[in-house]
Amino acid sequence: MLEYKTKLEKKIISELKAIAGANNVLEEYEDRYCYAYDATAIGDELYLPDAVILPENKEQISLILKIANKNRIPVITRGAGTNLVGGCIALKGGIVLHTSKMNKIIHIDKNNLLCQVEPGVVIEKLQQEAEKLGLFYPPDPASLRVSTIGGSIAQSSGGPRGFKYGTTKDYVLGLEAVMADGTIIKTGGKTVKNVTGYNLTQLLVGSEGTLGVITEATLRLIPKPEERQVLLACFESADEAVNAVTGIISAKITPSTLDIMDKNTMQTIEKFHKTGLPTDMDAVLVIEVDGFKESVSVQADQIVNICNEFGAKNIRASKNQQEADEIWFARRSAFGAVSRLRPNVFTEDAVVPRDKIPEMFKEIRRIANKYDLTVCIMGHIGDGNIHPNFSLDLRDKDEAKRFEKAAEEIFNSALSFGGTLSGEHGIGYHKLAFMKKALGEKNIEIMQAIKNIFDPNSILNPGKVV
Amino acid sequence: MLEYKTKLEKKIISELKAIAGANNVLEEYEDRYCYAYDATAIGDELYLPDAVILPENKEQISLILKIANKNRIPVITRGAGTNLVGGCIALKGGIVLHTSKMNKIIHIDKNNLLCQVEPGVVIEKLQQEAEKLGLFYPPDPASLRVSTIGGSIAQSSGGPRGFKYGTTKDYVLGLEAVMADGTIIKTGGKTVKNVTGYNLTQLLVGSEGTLGVITEATLRLIPKPEERQVLLACFESADEAVNAVTGIISAKITPSTLDIMDKNTMQTIEKFHKTGLPTDMDAVLVIEVDGFKESVSVQADQIVNICNEFGAKNIRASKNQQEADEIWFARRSAFGAVSRLRPNVFTEDAVVPRDKIPEMFKEIRRIANKYDLTVCIMGHIGDGNIHPNFSLDLRDKDEAKRFEKAAEEIFNSALSFGGTLSGEHGIGYHKLAFMKKALGEKNIEIMQAIKNIFDPNSILNPGKVV
Repeated sequence: MLEYKTKLEKKIISELKAIAGANNVLEEYEDRYCYAYDATAIGDELYLPDAVILPENKEQISLILKIANKNRIPVITRGAGTNLVGGCIALKGGIVLHTSKMNKIIHIDKNNLLCQVEPGVVIEKLQQEAEKLGLFYPPDPASLRVSTIGGSIAQSSGGPRGFKYGTTKDYVLGLEAVMADGTIIKTGGKTVKNVTGYNLTQLLVGSEGTLGVITEATLRLIPKPEERQVLLACFESADEAVNAVTGIISAKITPSTLDIMDKNTMQTIEKFHKTGLPTDMDAVLVIEVDGFKESVSVQADQIVNICNEFGAKNIRASKNQQEADEIWFARRSAFGAVSRLRPNVFTEDAVVPRDKIPEMFKEIRRIANKYDLTVCIMGHIGDGNIHPNFSLDLRDKDEAKRFEKAAEEIFNSALSFGGTLSGEHGIGYHKLAFMKKALGEKNIEIMQAIKNIFDPNSILNPGKVV
Repeated sequence: MLEYKTKLEKKIISELKAIAGANNVLEEYEDRYCYAYDATAIGDELYLPDAVILPENKEQISLILKIANKNRIPVITRGAGTNLVGGCIALKGGIVLHTSKMNKIIHIDKNNLLCQVEPGVVIEKLQQEAEKLGLFYPPDPASLRVSTIGGSIAQSSGGPRGFKYGTTKDYVLGLEAVMADGTIIKTGGKTVKNVTGYNLTQLLVGSEGTLGVITEATLRLIPKPEERQVLLACFESADEAVNAVTGIISAKITPSTLDIMDKNTMQTIEKFHKTGLPTDMDAVLVIEVDGFKESVSVQADQIVNICNEFGAKNIRASKNQQEADEIWFARRSAFGAVSRLRPNVFTEDAVVPRDKIPEMFKEIRRIANKYDLTVCIMGHIGDGNIHPNFSLDLRDKDEAKRFEKAAEEIFNSALSFGGTLSGEHGIGYHKLAFMKKALGEKNIEIMQAIKNIFDPNSILNPGKVV
């Protein structure tokens, strides 16, 4: 039975409109329907929020949270909704806070190599503005053209460049956030070094909207590397590609990216975009090196040698920015293309220590085979962070069941290799069931106690992470 | 009145000896006296622990903490005691846990670019062992020849290389720690990417022994840079040196180190070691660049040009490893030399955004002058993290009072410039009084609540941080 009418009392809706402006409070069924899902495949269930609010500043958010806290209304903060773990799903209804109107780059501070931004700033936009000043914001989730800084901080997002540059967490110097009771706190600061008390900044990073609503972030920027080159190394067998990755790491080269795409992935991409990927190859590595002009070609040459040694059939090296962009366009199209294959696509995100990559890769293929599932494998193989993208029709209950078993088996394999549940996508509600096994009871107890400090009534994104 | 006898009951001492072995429990006055201070100047007060225990493994630590927790005995964990904020001082007596017997490098994992170590491993030892395998552990507190990994994690230590490589926190992937009730927990893991729940690892890093006793750490290593070069740029006026720092940062060069020493510092060093520093200059910059062979000289040339532009009188460039080591020896002798000048030396650690460095530098000189104090200025100026080392005789009550006022004024200046209390030394008990002003009441409340989760009876390093 669909809920065409909001469950929120008229009085509360009026209060919310008085705070955020009537235009910024959406209560119509059609509007709420648009916020009933995120990028996660959730089958045919529908989790409708009771209202969607587009706040314009932290003061509004503080007042909204006060009302929500008093009335025990769930609050789900949402950027572009690109997360893949059901992080923005309103499991228990409530208010979705959409940060799209808080999208100002407040300041890019060239001298201090940092910037201050509102949560709704799109990542690519920040990167472009930084580049205009010769600066660089490395975190690059695949969704960066639409996904927001706030969301990427909440999920502690990664991306291909993690291999050299680390992930979002490594660039967050300070945060402003609103706690469940409406209190506005500031953590960290404007300095790269700061050991003044417990690291509350890193506690908020990756907390997936369960500890507070991020209203401003101070992010570290670095000088833009002088030059970059992208290599596309093609292998007839995925095993060879995977072994070449181990070879590159053992040779102590640090490419900025060390990604893989398998045959299924390439064929799917080429079905929708003609990007020139070698669909007859079992796997390609997408390798980017960057740095000083003088060192880029040296690194690229070393990598070419190693790939050849491990059996590469062909290596395409970008000769200019455009050619580099073309290879990246192909790589970035992967998830979108796979999602067009069948009604649903589900991306797994387990991560293993680097030297277990060959075994994990084989495991994923074995498991997909065992449960008769279509899988496109891509991901940040240099970090041990492989994303098997399962192409599914979740309306098919048998297939849904088989996928569930496969996901569990992949997770167990990752654990048995000394890895863990999530490299960069987070927990959301999709992986909640595995948390105890991954972390142990005591860690969960501690996390719940921490949650309780920030949000004693559990109104912030309930049913996620803990 | 000195406490020659331990306050601990005989029964408890026997229990502790049964756990850790009689030889590993020190209760004699002379033994305890050696643990009544750390590297912090604390005047003539004596804080004697009631017992010192040298545990051999985490199981012993767990059992010791159970007894301590039951009997409300303070437990202060200690590595080499090199911290500068009174972090290892047994303010309320109790047990000092000295980790010197847990000093094994368990494993250096070349393929996964990580290592597992016990807390008592000396930082330099780990660096040397990593280098043998072509790997690099960048964090380099000045005390690295004696200070331990456990201590540096507890204090989230920095060091000169922070400018390019970040600090200790950026290398901790996972921890094993014992909570106050004796529970052993593991956080993080062996993967560089990990977003499985709240970041408990970074909560423990920098918690200064107040949340748990670290018993094992998994640390990230990186490939050793191919080459490095050290420059010593000499300036007739500190202003010129400070402005050159801003010039280098604005030019988007990322040296691995960007340190300063002023005239007083150099003269003091030369008094005790003949290292060839230019004692007639007002300030020198110690600048290290590293990376690929091809890029090091390019960076060095750029820096030389900028320093010349800002008025450098002379620039010495290391031509080989030995010459580089000589410059580093001089820089690393600074604190030790200053500490030999007069009975006490107190190092401040405030940090400001980079573009406030010139103003902060002037402020420090002005304040030292105002309170008639001898100050040697050194530190990681590229990070905005300047260490004024005050040479003192704390037995002189008037001087002690003047120093207290100066320290407060420096801290207030740092705050007014948008900086904070501590860049890399931490809070300990020395800076506790300033915490509320630096962070605000709500943050302190949150930190206290977090402390309460890990250590409800407040036995772990009581009187520190919160």
